[in-house]
Amino acid sequence: MRETVPRVVIVGGGFGGLAAARALKNTPANLILVDRTNHHLFQPLLYQVATSVLSPGQIGSPIRGIVGKQRNTTVILGEVTGVDKDRQCVSVNSADRTDVPIPYDFLILATGVTHSYFGRDEFEKFAPGLKSLADAVAIRNKILQAFEQAEAEEDPTRHRDLLTFVLVGAGPTGVEMAGAIAVLIRNTLKAEFRRITPGSARIVLLDMAPRVLGPFSEELSLAAKERLESLGVEVRLGHGVDQIDADGVVVAGERILSKTVIWTAGVAPSPAGKWLNVGTDRPGRVRIQPDLSVPGHPEIFVVGDTASLDQDGKPLPGVAQVAMQQGRYAGKLIGRRVTGKSAPGPFRYFDKGNMAVVGKGFAVLQIGKVHLSGFIAWLAWAAVHLQFLAQASLRVSVFVQWVWTYLTGQRGSRLIVNHYGAEQSKPVIEAAPVGMTPSSK
Amino acid sequence: MRETVPRVVIVGGGFGGLAAARALKNTPANLILVDRTNHHLFQPLLYQVATSVLSPGQIGSPIRGIVGKQRNTTVILGEVTGVDKDRQCVSVNSADRTDVPIPYDFLILATGVTHSYFGRDEFEKFAPGLKSLADAVAIRNKILQAFEQAEAEEDPTRHRDLLTFVLVGAGPTGVEMAGAIAVLIRNTLKAEFRRITPGSARIVLLDMAPRVLGPFSEELSLAAKERLESLGVEVRLGHGVDQIDADGVVVAGERILSKTVIWTAGVAPSPAGKWLNVGTDRPGRVRIQPDLSVPGHPEIFVVGDTASLDQDGKPLPGVAQVAMQQGRYAGKLIGRRVTGKSAPGPFRYFDKGNMAVVGKGFAVLQIGKVHLSGFIAWLAWAAVHLQFLAQASLRVSVFVQWVWTYLTGQRGSRLIVNHYGAEQSKPVIEAAPVGMTPSSK
Repeated sequence: MRETVPRVVIVGGGFGGLAAARALKNTPANLILVDRTNHHLFQPLLYQVATSVLSPGQIGSPIRGIVGKQRNTTVILGEVTGVDKDRQCVSVNSADRTDVPIPYDFLILATGVTHSYFGRDEFEKFAPGLKSLADAVAIRNKILQAFEQAEAEEDPTRHRDLLTFVLVGAGPTGVEMAGAIAVLIRNTLKAEFRRITPGSARIVLLDMAPRVLGPFSEELSLAAKERLESLGVEVRLGHGVDQIDADGVVVAGERILSKTVIWTAGVAPSPAGKWLNVGTDRPGRVRIQPDLSVPGHPEIFVVGDTASLDQDGKPLPGVAQVAMQQGRYAGKLIGRRVTGKSAPGPFRYFDKGNMAVVGKGFAVLQIGKVHLSGFIAWLAWAAVHLQFLAQASLRVSVFVQWVWTYLTGQRGSRLIVNHYGAEQSKPVIEAAPVGMTPSSK
Repeated sequence: MRETVPRVVIVGGGFGGLAAARALKNTPANLILVDRTNHHLFQPLLYQVATSVLSPGQIGSPIRGIVGKQRNTTVILGEVTGVDKDRQCVSVNSADRTDVPIPYDFLILATGVTHSYFGRDEFEKFAPGLKSLADAVAIRNKILQAFEQAEAEEDPTRHRDLLTFVLVGAGPTGVEMAGAIAVLIRNTLKAEFRRITPGSARIVLLDMAPRVLGPFSEELSLAAKERLESLGVEVRLGHGVDQIDADGVVVAGERILSKTVIWTAGVAPSPAGKWLNVGTDRPGRVRIQPDLSVPGHPEIFVVGDTASLDQDGKPLPGVAQVAMQQGRYAGKLIGRRVTGKSAPGPFRYFDKGNMAVVGKGFAVLQIGKVHLSGFIAWLAWAAVHLQFLAQASLRVSVFVQWVWTYLTGQRGSRLIVNHYGAEQSKPVIEAAPVGMTPSSK
């Protein structure tokens, strides 16, 4: 039975996919949105889950809650494994079945990026990355457990590597994480331990680039670096990491002993280019045309971090704004085509600017010619991020949490939860040289 | 080096252990509080995490955040494995070391209960219980995934067992879970699916007892049962479960096909009785004296669910109020002994009453001769539970969430998060006869 309206399959419920689905809200089409999680993740605040400020539910909104009331939209929890361009089908693993074909008339791939260890995948075991809620909860466990393990260890000479936190990569995620860990230590944990002084913990931020926050101006990079250093973060630039293992990292020939190394460096695009078997740029992002379609396939669109498009001779950056604007454009274009209207002009990205938080009450902000750092930039950052949260209820709850954390230092979700069944509700203990001896004989 | 003040070891950061620690706040003693998680869990609201209303951070408060500012208290994340009464030491697994002795002058065991499958441990795999935050998140995943799997399945004949939820045990947890699932289905999910009608889901509440909510009066049991039935819950009493397996349950010879069975029945005490090698009651709870100490050991106290004490010829119930009052009593008694004051009179439980929620805006309440059901009881329930949350910030955030959920039906934390590393961020798929076929050819 042929459907009477065209079918649009959108893969990915991130910023790009959701924007596309919303743009098609009133189009006479059958939308299928496929995602491998049940939630839209507000990635810009993921570091706040990893550092206990926010709970997962405050930045993860059920995709059904956002577009499920759109009557033309079906949401499917499943993982896409391939695309058959000739038969116009995507293959989906869903429930217990694998490679089930879902046919499409139009396809929008908005499948984002994952971590990249630049060919050193063996680092992953020791330096987890931060892309999903599960990642954030795992890193939160790791950070909080390091303090717990040190406190359980009465011999202070054994505290050093437990209380050293290394962040590999000084882009926005690394800078924001480093600042948030510094504030966690100084404001939240300071009075709660007896055998360790959380404030003495060492936070090291590494990058092979010569400055932090590469996408920002040199002046803002410097402001961010100085702010980090005033929070006690050691910023080491100009050297890549030679080694990451159970004992820590090696950088510029020096070993830094650490039990908590976090990967905040590279990303790699999703396999969309492989699925489509079309031209990609060097990192593997699909080269798209000015209308965001794939060359030779006007029915296939690729948007967001997994797409490669130049504007004014420069590639568009992998940020939420690009994904949202591209998703909206692709949705509108399909809507116009379905209803027989003329195609819009080529896609053009409107840069609304770039921001990053450093610690508490301080951000850097770059909008066109406006460069700003400090408290006002932080207020702007907070306002913009609240505005872009998907649900009104989350805006309220995140706002309240931020005010509370700002005033009291208390965090919203400082939990170690080990999700390996009730039997093993004991913390997962790592091979750290720590222990506990009675202090009285 | 002998400590100059006595050392009090408290095992367990639940209601009993925390009350004891707080009661010892101003006592010249060295307190060590050991728990195997980093958080105090507000168990009465655990079912709300399992049904997506609240997030884990709203009912789990870091123990350090509660007692860590008490200068005489050290908090240790570790798991107790035994007690040596002669040497006055508890054995603790902490960080990477096992069976590390922690000496005590006074010991308070407040180690609570775990699930009991009444000798049918093979049920656990198919019918998880609800005791920890990890359990609640696992059950939340299971419930939400059942709807996702059914929606991914276009053949409606395959929806039946996915949309059948069975709760084994009609005590407070079972009744509250059943009501919360019913409201989830009817208020939150109703408009968001295309292929299934969440409202058609079947919720079955089983118990071998002749009525629900055993500890309440018959009249309130009946009110709760009628309320559940008005929400569409099938209440089946008077028969135990014969079998639980991957296909569902067998009760009174009838098989109920279900992919989501939840164990809300029995509990078993912690191994405190085995550690101490002292007399226990039949379920294994330590028989304690009227001053809560263990016979022959005036320096060891057992409080809460893992202790057995009769009052007026009846055993005290395993509820939070008993644990809190006993913990406070044990703490005070030790404080008086340490400061050379006379011992207080024997422990006496003051029953502040019992409540349970059924669905939305309805509770049953029994305080002495006052028996109440309906909206007013629900308001009382909400007020009392808010009051007993450990932190002021949680009172605010839980209150706001409840009001929001009450008004909009939206829940605070409707997430499927699989905590098995980023690689497997794909949902854990169970062997359910579901799948997806293209609806257009």
